[in-house]
Amino acid sequence: MTIKISIDCMGGDHGPSVTIPAAISFLKRNPDAELTLVGLEDVVKAELKKLHADAHPRLSILHASEQVTMDDPLEVALRRKKDSSMRVAIEQVKDGKAQACVSAGNTGALMAVSRYVLKTMAGVDRPAICTIMPNMNDGPTYVMDLGANVDCEPHHLHQFAIMGSVLVHAMEGIARPTIGLLNVGTEDIKGNEVVKATSQLLRADHERGKLNFFGNVEGNDIFKGTTDVVVCDGFVGNVTLKAIEGLARFFKLVLTTEFKRSPLTMLGAVIARSALKRITKRLNPARYNGASLLGLRGLVFKSHGGADAEAFEWAIRRAFEAAKNDVQQQLADMIAELMPREPQPNATKSDETA
Amino acid sequence: MTIKISIDCMGGDHGPSVTIPAAISFLKRNPDAELTLVGLEDVVKAELKKLHADAHPRLSILHASEQVTMDDPLEVALRRKKDSSMRVAIEQVKDGKAQACVSAGNTGALMAVSRYVLKTMAGVDRPAICTIMPNMNDGPTYVMDLGANVDCEPHHLHQFAIMGSVLVHAMEGIARPTIGLLNVGTEDIKGNEVVKATSQLLRADHERGKLNFFGNVEGNDIFKGTTDVVVCDGFVGNVTLKAIEGLARFFKLVLTTEFKRSPLTMLGAVIARSALKRITKRLNPARYNGASLLGLRGLVFKSHGGADAEAFEWAIRRAFEAAKNDVQQQLADMIAELMPREPQPNATKSDETA
Repeated sequence: MTIKISIDCMGGDHGPSVTIPAAISFLKRNPDAELTLVGLEDVVKAELKKLHADAHPRLSILHASEQVTMDDPLEVALRRKKDSSMRVAIEQVKDGKAQACVSAGNTGALMAVSRYVLKTMAGVDRPAICTIMPNMNDGPTYVMDLGANVDCEPHHLHQFAIMGSVLVHAMEGIARPTIGLLNVGTEDIKGNEVVKATSQLLRADHERGKLNFFGNVEGNDIFKGTTDVVVCDGFVGNVTLKAIEGLARFFKLVLTTEFKRSPLTMLGAVIARSALKRITKRLNPARYNGASLLGLRGLVFKSHGGADAEAFEWAIRRAFEAAKNDVQQQLADMIAELMPREPQPNATKSDETA
Repeated sequence: MTIKISIDCMGGDHGPSVTIPAAISFLKRNPDAELTLVGLEDVVKAELKKLHADAHPRLSILHASEQVTMDDPLEVALRRKKDSSMRVAIEQVKDGKAQACVSAGNTGALMAVSRYVLKTMAGVDRPAICTIMPNMNDGPTYVMDLGANVDCEPHHLHQFAIMGSVLVHAMEGIARPTIGLLNVGTEDIKGNEVVKATSQLLRADHERGKLNFFGNVEGNDIFKGTTDVVVCDGFVGNVTLKAIEGLARFFKLVLTTEFKRSPLTMLGAVIARSALKRITKRLNPARYNGASLLGLRGLVFKSHGGADAEAFEWAIRRAFEAAKNDVQQQLADMIAELMPREPQPNATKSDETA
């Protein structure tokens, strides 16, 4: 079965010069994929021509006259730029013309426009952003929320846990993914009031056999791979993710500087090249690019704004896998089962996105 | 002038086998330091004998019959073990017999016993824990709170900022340390309600010329060294710190595994030894050991529980420097100036510690 993905070609720090080579490379490797490139037609065509890929049978171009910049306030992205490549790419999902969409644009705008165009899934109060991180078990740890919801109530975190569990089940083929609640200690008495109340909700689902709740986890458990999913509010998730990115960059800088310091250390680096290559590969952030916006009536994936073509291709791959594994239907089923209540009065209230 | 530091010799994962060698090494390097070793007299004496240091003129032993373990609930540390090495070491500070105290014991217990014995400083609602992290400017970034206060109001974060500023001023000799408020974005509209309100308090102090408030910072700014101080609540700080520790351990594991994988990569590592040494040194967590418990009527420093002798010695050094630079008096002055109000009704309410 062919899976169709729409791509916001204009988003991110590098726009078409990254998104289009990534799309072409992805198409070549995946014969069951079709892509719709959304953006300024002339620009997209010129980039395709450069890559000798302007007549690919599984590729189509959809013109969008505007683009959302990294600095655009939410209101501009939402109300003024109605023909932005971001919005048109999301509308492809809404209209059933694509099964998922990928953008490297501004996270806040992407979430806001996605919510506006696709609407929130029944039973979900707030969509959330889920990303993956490498762990010492050579597997990914799924962490959410990454910044869509800076103030959360226990039932929000509860929903995040359900969505994370479904995503891991669909993407990794794990029957009963383990769920950890990010906290300042592992004991039940630890944490703030929201976390303690969330723990009770998750424990109840666990006892009914619906979720595999491990209990509290701490920051280091993300990298230990203690659980498949780590749940937190968007404030904690965003700060932690960025701190981790900052440390990774610092580490890379120290590694590079110190090996380049003298001819001898450079020689050592040349001889140990294969080790350095594997280190880069294992810790390569590109492989972990592609965060899921979960809880919408359609699949949207967010690439890092600074992604290169390799990283952006990973984001397309994740969107493709999610569509192929029918994450959307599985989410709807699980939410209907575990969250059968009426939407909250504030279900449509837009929360600030990071 | 001689500075006297009391040391809880029994705390931490390794107890006297780490704390005492660290103390002896510190004494040898610092002729103006005196140390009081607190713990089971026989054990301390035996350890000193092993090190041929049982008759050091600037060393005294103070017997304490009990010890707080890592698993002891707060109530046990507080109410039952009244003759614990931790408590006796803190009492030395209260009685003016030591200018600061160092312990590698359980953080929650250390904070609780310190609050109980020393009491909170006038004008401060809640003491906080401040640690330092390396940054790309080769300087330390001071981050607080690290877990003493999991639910914070704006005036708590405001006080943390004041205390952090004083600490950096005293320890680093920086006239007007810059303060960043940890948030999910740098724009003023970003963040949860507590952070937004805190920002206004800090902005007001900045405009009066009292604090050097930089504005919002993000997780990666900790490592960029954007500001001297990064302020956050104890939940965010604790999770972030542990995530960072987890990632650092993961890096170390990957580095070690990959260099040891084949004779060739091992040869490369031998040749590039100086680079690897400098990498370890720059990222060495031992150098950043020694968190300050701020806002008490006396100086208490917390070493990582798993610290080795090198790391524990860094914690002693930080306590020594803080005492030498009269952090306590500077804190009292600044708090009196900026927080001249009456203590809050809940000022003595014990908050859960992580």
